[in-house]
Amino acid sequence: MTRVLLATRNSGKVAELQRILAPYGMSLEGASYEPGPETGASFADNALAKAREGVAETGLPSVADDSGLTVDALNGMPGILSARWAGRHGDDLANLQLVLGQLSDVPDSRRGAAFVCAAAYALPDGRSEVVLGELRGRLIREPRGSNGFGYDPIFVPLGYDVTSAELSPEEKDAISHRGQAFRALAPLLAAALPA
Amino acid sequence: MTRVLLATRNSGKVAELQRILAPYGMSLEGASYEPGPETGASFADNALAKAREGVAETGLPSVADDSGLTVDALNGMPGILSARWAGRHGDDLANLQLVLGQLSDVPDSRRGAAFVCAAAYALPDGRSEVVLGELRGRLIREPRGSNGFGYDPIFVPLGYDVTSAELSPEEKDAISHRGQAFRALAPLLAAALPA
Repeated sequence: MTRVLLATRNSGKVAELQRILAPYGMSLEGASYEPGPETGASFADNALAKAREGVAETGLPSVADDSGLTVDALNGMPGILSARWAGRHGDDLANLQLVLGQLSDVPDSRRGAAFVCAAAYALPDGRSEVVLGELRGRLIREPRGSNGFGYDPIFVPLGYDVTSAELSPEEKDAISHRGQAFRALAPLLAAALPA
Repeated sequence: MTRVLLATRNSGKVAELQRILAPYGMSLEGASYEPGPETGASFADNALAKAREGVAETGLPSVADDSGLTVDALNGMPGILSARWAGRHGDDLANLQLVLGQLSDVPDSRRGAAFVCAAAYALPDGRSEVVLGELRGRLIREPRGSNGFGYDPIFVPLGYDVTSAELSPEEKDAISHRGQAFRALAPLLAAALPA
């Protein structure tokens, strides 16, 4: 199996992407270095920067994503700041509770949102690629479900009555923004890797 | 002096608007009722709704504003959610610290922002008017100054080296979003009031 670095230390993401990329014969490993700050102005900028940082740190072909929740009533934010929305990086519960607080007076008719993912690869020879995936839905008022991570417990995908955190991992992969983006990226990466 | 209701319980706003509207011979009084939630989709919607609520509660000609900070790197948010950005209404320090935390990785070149104010009046006979004022500037990384309120300590107006909270009340009124909006509204209201 081809070794590929997944340029993140988020174990939830590593587990999700291992499931998605396993059929392509890639062996994903998480990052052991401390990634630099994300200073890009878009999901795509950040995903590419993280993949290139992975190559620079390890010399391995690297994949990365930048994902987040874009909330209509917040003009598309938290967006690229999803992981640090409450002010500190990675406090999922605080981030989710903050969005609920910010939206507490926002009526059901204006609670649309989308999960967006930019998935990128970068290779040691300098080639790179980035693709986008999106899952539309709406935000409820109280968290439900214990699968997933991040904002999953307050997000109900379009056409569903359950939250992303109430879906099984396999059900979530089939529709998720990250699943869509990495299923689009995987064949591009597989074709670009040395045989 | 004509009695006019200022449909807010924010004492900082009452003081600011009393200074601005005093030359027009209006006697402003703050609201004693508990205003309803702000559920409009824009500053102008909210300002008009608050002024109309003031008329309904008191029978007096009423003025109101909806103001906020629009941050470029937050796609124009906190915007209409400025007063409850940290999740609870009116915690100025928490709101300001949250914006600083959200922007901690955002470079100086992308820290533009504006204070925006919609000022509205509503009269017992059903007439109403709304006007906008804006003050452009940028956000610094640590609060400075003790005048003003809200996000003033982290906002440096365009062309200045000091924050809005380091300006005297008179200097701030001369350039502020709220000053601009209410100086535009005042003559319209004075002309519309019964002699």
